[in-house]
Amino acid sequence: MPKACVISLPNFNTKVDVMEKVNLENKLALFAEYWAPKIVGELNGQHVKLVKIKGEFVFHKHENEDELFLVIKGSFNMEFENHKVHLNEGEFLIVPRGVVHRPVAEEECSILLFEPSGTLNTGDAVNKELTKLVLDRI
Amino acid sequence: MPKACVISLPNFNTKVDVMEKVNLENKLALFAEYWAPKIVGELNGQHVKLVKIKGEFVFHKHENEDELFLVIKGSFNMEFENHKVHLNEGEFLIVPRGVVHRPVAEEECSILLFEPSGTLNTGDAVNKELTKLVLDRI
Repeated sequence: MPKACVISLPNFNTKVDVMEKVNLENKLALFAEYWAPKIVGELNGQHVKLVKIKGEFVFHKHENEDELFLVIKGSFNMEFENHKVHLNEGEFLIVPRGVVHRPVAEEECSILLFEPSGTLNTGDAVNKELTKLVLDRI
Repeated sequence: MPKACVISLPNFNTKVDVMEKVNLENKLALFAEYWAPKIVGELNGQHVKLVKIKGEFVFHKHENEDELFLVIKGSFNMEFENHKVHLNEGEFLIVPRGVVHRPVAEEECSILLFEPSGTLNTGDAVNKELTKLVLDRI
Protein backbone atom coordinates (compact mmCIF):
# COMPACT_ATOMS: atom_id res chain seq x y z
CA MET A 1 0.00 0.00 0.00
CA PRO A 2 1.40 3.42 -0.83
CA LYS A 3 0.47 4.69 2.63
CA ALA A 4 2.48 1.95 4.29
CA CYS A 5 5.50 2.77 2.17
CA VAL A 6 5.26 6.45 2.86
CA ILE A 7 4.82 6.05 6.58
CA SER A 8 7.51 3.43 7.04
CA LEU A 9 10.23 5.20 5.10
CA PRO A 10 12.34 7.76 6.88
CA ASN A 11 12.86 10.55 4.37
CA PHE A 12 11.40 12.31 1.40
CA ASN A 13 13.74 10.79 -1.13
CA THR A 14 12.66 7.26 -0.32
CA LYS A 15 9.07 8.43 -0.16
CA VAL A 16 9.44 9.39 -3.81
CA ASP A 17 10.18 5.76 -4.68
CA VAL A 18 6.56 4.80 -4.27
CA MET A 19 5.58 7.51 -6.72
CA GLU A 20 7.31 6.44 -9.90
CA LYS A 21 5.08 6.92 -12.92
CA VAL A 22 3.89 3.87 -14.84
CA ASN A 23 4.00 3.83 -18.64
CA LEU A 24 1.33 1.38 -19.81
CA GLU A 25 3.00 0.62 -23.15
CA ASN A 26 6.34 -0.12 -21.48
CA LYS A 27 4.69 -2.41 -18.94
CA LEU A 28 2.78 -4.29 -21.66
CA ALA A 29 6.08 -4.90 -23.45
CA LEU A 30 7.32 -6.87 -20.43
CA PHE A 31 5.06 -9.89 -20.90
CA ALA A 32 3.33 -11.89 -23.62
CA GLU A 33 1.26 -14.56 -21.86
CA TYR A 34 -2.52 -14.42 -22.03
CA TRP A 35 -4.99 -14.49 -19.11
CA ALA A 36 -2.27 -13.74 -16.53
CA PRO A 37 -2.97 -10.31 -14.94
CA LYS A 38 0.08 -8.35 -13.77
CA ILE A 39 -0.12 -5.90 -10.87
CA VAL A 40 1.14 -2.44 -11.89
CA GLY A 41 -0.29 -0.34 -9.08
CA GLU A 42 -2.09 -0.44 -5.75
CA LEU A 43 -4.13 2.21 -3.96
CA ASN A 44 -6.91 2.26 -1.38
CA GLY A 45 -7.00 -1.52 -1.22
CA GLN A 46 -7.50 -1.75 -4.98
CA HIS A 47 -5.14 -3.16 -7.58
CA VAL A 48 -4.35 -1.74 -10.99
CA LYS A 49 -3.56 -4.65 -13.29
CA LEU A 50 -2.64 -5.18 -16.93
CA VAL A 51 -3.70 -8.29 -18.78
CA LYS A 52 -3.39 -9.56 -22.35
CA ILE A 53 -6.20 -11.76 -23.57
CA LYS A 54 -6.93 -13.80 -26.68
CA GLY A 55 -9.67 -16.38 -27.15
CA GLU A 56 -12.47 -17.23 -24.74
CA PHE A 57 -12.24 -17.07 -20.97
CA VAL A 58 -14.45 -19.06 -18.59
CA PHE A 59 -17.84 -17.71 -17.46
CA HIS A 60 -17.59 -16.65 -13.81
CA LYS A 61 -18.73 -14.07 -11.26
CA HIS A 62 -17.22 -12.33 -8.27
CA GLU A 63 -19.39 -12.36 -5.16
CA ASN A 64 -17.87 -9.28 -3.55
CA GLU A 65 -15.90 -7.40 -6.19
CA ASP A 66 -16.91 -5.00 -8.94
CA GLU A 67 -14.43 -5.03 -11.84
CA LEU A 68 -13.46 -2.33 -14.32
CA PHE A 69 -12.08 -3.28 -17.75
CA LEU A 70 -10.43 -0.47 -19.78
CA VAL A 71 -9.18 -1.37 -23.26
CA ILE A 72 -5.62 -0.10 -23.82
CA LYS A 73 -5.02 -1.82 -27.16
CA GLY A 74 -7.24 -3.93 -29.39
CA SER A 75 -10.86 -4.82 -28.71
CA PHE A 76 -12.88 -7.59 -27.08
CA ASN A 77 -16.40 -8.67 -26.21
CA MET A 78 -17.61 -8.98 -22.64
CA GLU A 79 -20.17 -11.76 -22.78
CA PHE A 80 -23.00 -12.04 -20.25
CA GLU A 81 -25.77 -14.59 -19.78
CA ASN A 82 -27.91 -13.20 -22.59
CA HIS A 83 -26.03 -10.36 -24.27
CA LYS A 84 -22.54 -9.05 -24.92
CA VAL A 85 -20.80 -5.66 -24.99
CA HIS A 86 -18.07 -4.88 -27.54
CA LEU A 87 -15.25 -2.73 -26.16
CA ASN A 88 -12.71 -0.80 -28.22
CA GLU A 89 -9.60 1.16 -27.28
CA GLY A 90 -10.40 3.95 -24.86
CA GLU A 91 -13.60 2.33 -23.63
CA PHE A 92 -14.27 0.79 -20.23
CA LEU A 93 -16.96 -1.36 -18.69
CA ILE A 94 -17.71 -1.94 -15.02
CA VAL A 95 -18.99 -5.43 -14.25
CA PRO A 96 -20.81 -5.36 -10.89
CA ARG A 97 -20.25 -8.07 -8.30
CA GLY A 98 -22.49 -11.06 -8.78
CA VAL A 99 -22.86 -10.71 -12.54
CA VAL A 100 -21.79 -13.74 -14.59
CA HIS A 101 -19.42 -12.69 -17.40
CA ARG A 102 -16.52 -13.76 -19.56
CA PRO A 103 -14.14 -11.79 -21.80
CA VAL A 104 -13.71 -13.04 -25.38
CA ALA A 105 -11.14 -11.62 -27.82
CA GLU A 106 -10.74 -12.71 -31.45
CA GLU A 107 -7.33 -11.02 -31.57
CA GLU A 108 -4.91 -10.09 -28.80
CA CYS A 109 -6.32 -7.36 -26.58
CA SER A 110 -4.55 -5.48 -23.77
CA ILE A 111 -6.72 -4.39 -20.86
CA LEU A 112 -6.24 -2.34 -17.70
CA LEU A 113 -8.16 -3.68 -14.70
CA PHE A 114 -9.25 -1.85 -11.54
CA GLU A 115 -10.48 -4.20 -8.85
CA PRO A 116 -10.04 -4.91 -5.14
CA SER A 117 -6.72 -6.42 -4.06
CA GLY A 118 -7.00 -10.19 -4.00
CA THR A 119 -9.67 -10.47 -6.68
CA LEU A 120 -9.34 -13.92 -8.25
CA ASN A 121 -9.29 -13.80 -12.04
CA THR A 122 -11.71 -16.71 -12.41
CA GLY A 123 -13.98 -15.65 -9.55
CA ASP A 124 -16.18 -18.58 -8.55
CA ALA A 125 -15.05 -20.71 -11.52
CA VAL A 126 -11.76 -21.93 -10.09
CA ASN A 127 -9.88 -23.68 -12.85
CA LYS A 128 -6.56 -25.48 -12.56
CA GLU A 129 -5.34 -23.99 -15.82
CA LEU A 130 -6.81 -20.49 -15.73
CA THR A 131 -6.97 -19.50 -12.06
CA LYS A 132 -3.97 -17.39 -11.02
CA LEU A 133 -3.51 -17.52 -7.26
CA VAL A 134 -0.32 -15.46 -7.28
CA LEU A 135 0.11 -12.47 -9.60
CA ASP A 136 3.40 -10.98 -10.77
CA ARG A 137 4.12 -7.34 -9.99
CA ILE A 138 5.83 -5.64 -12.89
CA MET B 1 -22.84 1.67 -6.48
CA PRO B 2 -23.16 -1.10 -9.01
CA LYS B 3 -23.95 -3.58 -6.25
CA ALA B 4 -26.84 -1.48 -5.01
CA CYS B 5 -28.24 -1.24 -8.54
CA VAL B 6 -27.89 -4.93 -9.14
CA ILE B 7 -29.45 -5.95 -5.86
CA SER B 8 -32.31 -3.49 -5.98
CA LEU B 9 -33.40 -4.30 -9.51
CA PRO B 10 -35.68 -7.24 -10.11
CA ASN B 11 -34.38 -8.88 -13.24
CA PHE B 12 -31.39 -9.41 -15.46
CA ASN B 13 -32.47 -6.91 -18.10
CA THR B 14 -32.49 -4.03 -15.66
CA LYS B 15 -29.27 -5.32 -14.14
CA VAL B 16 -27.70 -4.79 -17.55
CA ASP B 17 -28.51 -1.08 -17.38
CA VAL B 18 -25.69 -0.47 -14.94
CA MET B 19 -23.24 -2.02 -17.37
CA GLU B 20 -23.18 0.40 -20.26
CA LYS B 21 -19.67 0.89 -21.59
CA VAL B 22 -18.00 4.29 -21.24
CA ASN B 23 -16.12 5.84 -24.15
CA LEU B 24 -13.53 8.22 -22.68
CA GLU B 25 -13.29 10.43 -25.79
CA ASN B 26 -17.06 10.83 -25.97
CA LYS B 27 -17.27 11.72 -22.28
CA LEU B 28 -14.45 14.27 -22.61
CA ALA B 29 -16.36 15.93 -25.46
CA LEU B 30 -19.23 16.69 -23.05
CA PHE B 31 -17.44 19.36 -21.04
CA ALA B 32 -14.79 22.05 -21.40
CA GLU B 33 -14.27 23.54 -17.93
CA TYR B 34 -10.97 23.04 -16.14
CA TRP B 35 -10.42 21.67 -12.62
CA ALA B 36 -13.96 20.29 -12.38
CA PRO B 37 -13.81 16.46 -12.16
CA LYS B 38 -16.77 14.57 -13.63
CA ILE B 39 -17.81 11.17 -12.30
CA VAL B 40 -17.94 8.56 -15.09
CA GLY B 41 -17.93 5.37 -13.06
CA GLU B 42 -18.17 3.93 -9.56
CA LEU B 43 -17.05 0.58 -8.19
CA ASN B 44 -16.04 -0.82 -4.81
CA GLY B 45 -16.52 2.55 -3.14
CA GLN B 46 -14.17 4.20 -5.62
CA HIS B 47 -14.96 6.80 -8.27
CA VAL B 48 -13.66 6.94 -11.81
CA LYS B 49 -13.50 10.58 -12.84
CA LEU B 50 -12.45 12.61 -15.86
CA VAL B 51 -10.96 16.05 -15.49
CA LYS B 52 -9.49 18.65 -17.84
CA ILE B 53 -6.74 20.80 -16.44
CA LYS B 54 -4.74 23.81 -17.61
CA GLY B 55 -2.49 26.01 -15.52
CA GLU B 56 -1.48 25.52 -11.89
CA PHE B 57 -3.63 23.90 -9.22
CA VAL B 58 -3.23 24.52 -5.49
CA PHE B 59 -0.80 22.45 -3.40
CA HIS B 60 -2.78 20.08 -1.19
CA LYS B 61 -2.84 16.61 0.33
CA HIS B 62 -5.47 13.99 1.10
CA GLU B 63 -5.26 12.55 4.62
CA ASN B 64 -7.01 9.27 3.83
CA GLU B 65 -7.08 8.83 0.07
CA ASP B 66 -4.51 7.61 -2.43
CA GLU B 67 -5.10 9.07 -5.90
CA LEU B 68 -4.35 7.69 -9.35
CA PHE B 69 -3.83 10.08 -12.30
CA LEU B 70 -3.83 8.52 -15.80
CA VAL B 71 -3.18 10.85 -18.73
CA ILE B 72 -5.74 10.34 -21.51
CA LYS B 73 -4.70 13.29 -23.69
CA GLY B 74 -1.90 15.83 -23.38
CA SER B 75 0.69 15.95 -20.62
CA PHE B 76 1.22 17.61 -17.25
CA ASN B 77 3.61 17.83 -14.33
CA MET B 78 2.73 16.56 -10.88
CA GLU B 79 4.64 18.85 -8.56
CA PHE B 80 5.70 17.78 -5.06
CA GLU B 81 7.49 19.61 -2.27
CA ASN B 82 10.91 19.28 -3.85
CA HIS B 83 10.53 17.51 -7.19
CA LYS B 84 8.08 16.95 -10.01
CA VAL B 85 7.05 14.09 -12.29
CA HIS B 86 6.16 14.71 -15.95
CA LEU B 87 3.31 12.53 -17.22
CA ASN B 88 2.48 11.88 -20.88
CA GLU B 89 -0.43 10.09 -22.56
CA GLY B 90 -0.69 6.49 -21.41
CA GLU B 91 1.18 7.11 -18.16
CA PHE B 92 -0.21 7.10 -14.63
CA LEU B 93 1.01 8.15 -11.23
CA ILE B 94 -0.33 7.13 -7.83
CA VAL B 95 -0.04 9.86 -5.20
CA PRO B 96 -0.23 8.26 -1.74
CA ARG B 97 -2.38 9.78 0.99
CA GLY B 98 -0.60 12.45 2.99
CA VAL B 99 1.72 13.55 0.20
CA VAL B 100 1.54 17.24 -0.74
CA HIS B 101 1.11 17.67 -4.50
CA ARG B 102 -0.36 19.83 -7.23
CA PRO B 103 -0.96 19.20 -10.94
CA VAL B 104 0.40 21.81 -13.37
CA ALA B 105 -0.33 21.78 -17.12
CA GLU B 106 1.09 24.24 -19.65
CA GLU B 107 -1.52 23.15 -22.19
CA GLU B 108 -4.91 21.49 -21.72
CA CYS B 109 -4.55 17.96 -20.38
CA SER B 110 -7.29 15.35 -19.93
CA ILE B 111 -6.86 12.96 -17.02
CA LEU B 112 -8.67 9.90 -15.67
CA LEU B 113 -8.78 9.82 -11.87
CA PHE B 114 -9.32 6.75 -9.73
CA GLU B 115 -9.89 7.53 -6.06
CA PRO B 116 -12.29 6.82 -3.19
CA SER B 117 -15.83 8.17 -3.52
CA GLY B 118 -16.06 11.55 -1.83
CA THR B 119 -12.42 12.53 -2.36
CA LEU B 120 -12.31 16.33 -2.36
CA ASN B 121 -10.38 17.73 -5.32
CA THR B 122 -8.49 20.25 -3.19
CA GLY B 123 -7.93 17.89 -0.24
CA ASP B 124 -6.94 19.91 2.82
CA ALA B 125 -6.61 23.15 0.84
CA VAL B 126 -10.28 24.09 0.67
CA ASN B 127 -10.63 26.98 -1.71
CA LYS B 128 -13.80 28.90 -2.52
CA GLU B 129 -12.96 28.97 -6.22
CA LEU B 130 -11.34 25.57 -6.74
CA THR B 131 -13.01 23.19 -4.28
CA LYS B 132 -15.83 21.21 -5.89
CA LEU B 133 -18.20 19.90 -3.22
CA VAL B 134 -20.63 18.41 -5.72
CA LEU B 135 -19.44 16.67 -8.88
CA ASP B 136 -21.43 16.15 -12.07
CA ARG B 137 -22.03 12.61 -13.29
CA ILE B 138 -21.75 12.43 -17.05
